[in-house]
Amino acid sequence: MNAMLVTLLVSLLSASVAGLSGAAETSQGPHRVVMHLNSGDEKVQRGALNNIRNLYQEVGREHLLVELVVHGAGLPLLTKKDSTLAPELAQLKTAYDVEFTACSNTMKAQGLTRADLINQVDRTVPAMVRLMELQEEGWAYIKP
Amino acid sequence: MNAMLVTLLVSLLSASVAGLSGAAETSQGPHRVVMHLNSGDEKVQRGALNNIRNLYQEVGREHLLVELVVHGAGLPLLTKKDSTLAPELAQLKTAYDVEFTACSNTMKAQGLTRADLINQVDRTVPAMVRLMELQEEGWAYIKP
Amino acid sequence: MNAMLVTLLVSLLSASVAGLSGAAETSQGPHRVVMHLNSGDEKVQRGALNNIRNLYQEVGREHLLVELVVHGAGLPLLTKKDSTLAPELAQLKTAYDVEFTACSNTMKAQGLTRADLINQVDRTVPAMVRLMELQEEGWAYIKP
Repeated sequence: MNAMLVTLLVSLLSASVAGLSGAAETSQGPHRVVMHLNSGDEKVQRGALNNIRNLYQEVGREHLLVELVVHGAGLPLLTKKDSTLAPELAQLKTAYDVEFTACSNTMKAQGLTRADLINQVDRTVPAMVRLMELQEEGWAYIKP
Repeated sequence: MNAMLVTLLVSLLSASVAGLSGAAETSQGPHRVVMHLNSGDEKVQRGALNNIRNLYQEVGREHLLVELVVHGAGLPLLTKKDSTLAPELAQLKTAYDVEFTACSNTMKAQGLTRADLINQVDRTVPAMVRLMELQEEGWAYIKP
Repeated sequence: MNAMLVTLLVSLLSASVAGLSGAAETSQGPHRVVMHLNSGDEKVQRGALNNIRNLYQEVGREHLLVELVVHGAGLPLLTKKDSTLAPELAQLKTAYDVEFTACSNTMKAQGLTRADLINQVDRTVPAMVRLMELQEEGWAYIKP
């Protein structure tokens, strides 16, 4: 009887220790950074793209995930018609597979559809929800 | 004697497992987002309020807590005398029970008392401390 | 034999509980805040320094670590030639031992070396990497 209890304890304890190791594993995955852009100022936009490039150059593509979440006055950066930095965006996509997210609420407010956005955009979702959820999953947040 | 030790172990183990579940529970509670506003630009202020509304519309009032922490040049947003967005603040309070926090250090610097602030303000505390503490408790941070 | 197993269990359990307490200890250590500055606007720069001072005055030097990470258009704040707030920086260093970090990528882009920076600068590293790593270690992030 005691032996059974001890066996049970060992099982429970293993589960408990596994839970702790799980947390450790997470911290050993790739670095994850969400960048938040809502500025229509080309200097700020160019700065954000430079920041992303610098980060990949320092850390290495295989060790890093960056997602740029764009909304409000920043959205023209991701439109075919108005983006003044389309070549830079294409280069970041090719070289590092940076994720580009356009805010679906801003699109609605500005009367834009997916076809109005540059091809490199990966998803259209509410920006605030995305910024919240990625931080909940442990991504670092940077506002360039 | 062994039986007592086993009982003790079970108690200790339960406490340990409870600690782990506690962490899990937290991540299943409502989403929590602290928004940081220190701009006197009405466009930025209006954008912040729109961001909060969008978030509640997407996630639902029962699943979300948003606190807007206002200081520095942003504080006039929360004063009776100077707020140009008082109706929007009142609507966010009524519809979603958004929390509004005014910086007590800024109030002192600008010679303001609680009576100078709109009724919807929930607390007056040092903004930096609040931004730090909420993040320490796991709240996501967004600077609109 | 059972006694040995029980002893083993107690050891394992202690390790497990120690792991949990380790997490608790971290949250009882000093508060840690990384401030992100990339603005050349003296109002924003002065605001950031005031925010840091307010935080130390509220929380107390022994309970708080603040690091100011400066890059891009903000870097002149930390140069001997262009800083308009050198006395304030020196005072924050003396009174609270605030950490000042200058972005090495920005320095290269602007043709600056360590000798061009004020003495209070503690390190020159890529700003984005630093902002990411400190958040990964649990530091709160504030963009003044």
